[in-house]
Amino acid sequence: MAKFSISTKGNNDIIDITPQVIEQVKKTEVKEGVCLISCSGSTCGITTIEYEPNLIRDFKEFLEKLAPRDKKYYHDETWGEKNGYSHLLSALFKPFLTVPIENGELTLGSWQQIVFCDFDSRPRRRKVLVKIIKN
Amino acid sequence: MAKFSISTKGNNDIIDITPQVIEQVKKTEVKEGVCLISCSGSTCGITTIEYEPNLIRDFKEFLEKLAPRDKKYYHDETWGEKNGYSHLLSALFKPFLTVPIENGELTLGSWQQIVFCDFDSRPRRRKVLVKIIKN
Amino acid sequence: MAKFSISTKGNNDIIDITPQVIEQVKKTEVKEGVCLISCSGSTCGITTIEYEPNLIRDFKEFLEKLAPRDKKYYHDETWGEKNGYSHLLSALFKPFLTVPIENGELTLGSWQQIVFCDFDSRPRRRKVLVKIIKN
Repeated sequence: MAKFSISTKGNNDIIDITPQVIEQVKKTEVKEGVCLISCSGSTCGITTIEYEPNLIRDFKEFLEKLAPRDKKYYHDETWGEKNGYSHLLSALFKPFLTVPIENGELTLGSWQQIVFCDFDSRPRRRKVLVKIIKN
Repeated sequence: MAKFSISTKGNNDIIDITPQVIEQVKKTEVKEGVCLISCSGSTCGITTIEYEPNLIRDFKEFLEKLAPRDKKYYHDETWGEKNGYSHLLSALFKPFLTVPIENGELTLGSWQQIVFCDFDSRPRRRKVLVKIIKN
Repeated sequence: MAKFSISTKGNNDIIDITPQVIEQVKKTEVKEGVCLISCSGSTCGITTIEYEPNLIRDFKEFLEKLAPRDKKYYHDETWGEKNGYSHLLSALFKPFLTVPIENGELTLGSWQQIVFCDFDSRPRRRKVLVKIIKN
């Protein structure tokens, strides 16, 4: 399985990882199949979005509305990490995404990027896993 | 990869695409495997729901509550398409769904349909991709 | 396809099914591949979360905020089952989850469990499907 690492700022940092995923797809030379992008962890998510600064701003407001960071969470009493909201967003967005491969390329739209969402309350070093299944 | 097209009204139009997906599964004659249904685009989603008019009405209210259409979004300043909410819902619901195939059939419940959700702010012609991986 | 059954209390019961899924992965002896965990039904979901009592309490509050149980839903008029909220949460969380397998093990973090979420309004007996695809 292919892997690459990224550094995040945490706090709902949204990072475009499309180039790194494309690189792994090209390396395998698989022409038809599926690509599962994932991360081992319970405070992050992986999805697709148009990676455009204004929309990313909207997305962060959206996340804040879904799970406010300044709310008190029971989970914060367990570990004291103040990241209850991070876990809720991760359960909702899931750190798993499966995209088809056709003619050696991911079937993404022109305005559709794969993003890593780091919901955690602190900067993190993350390992992203790229599993490619041939047709 | 199999494909089929649908016409949508946009504005959170919810369309039952189960018959078309089943048709593609039958054509491949794959008995055991998985079926990845997807769409290239950042303003749509694919999921399962009981396709029943009252519930679809509830679902549309639910979407409206999650991402109100009349709210101002920063993204609207970028392209002027007034579809900021569409992108947020797409990032949340994701236009990717993977369903198992057993004995040549999708393992759906009797009251569980595959739906294409067009969150965009205008009618669209959409191409749905059906990728089947044999066990 | 492997299967196992669980009993739930319904009402957003959150059940850790990681041990049962791991058991099925070990049985197949697949070293590299992907594992699709699913359930046929439109009132449940499958995702990952840190299975810790305080966080599960937060998660239930989060679900209640997303789709309140005491709200009136149009769907309740159709079947009288008072589970409109269950269907909405299922469409959002989806009863499908795909996790990579590496060296014969699911690539989960130490604080990341696979959970079955029973959003239905009554206790249920559920069959969980585990489909493993070799690399």
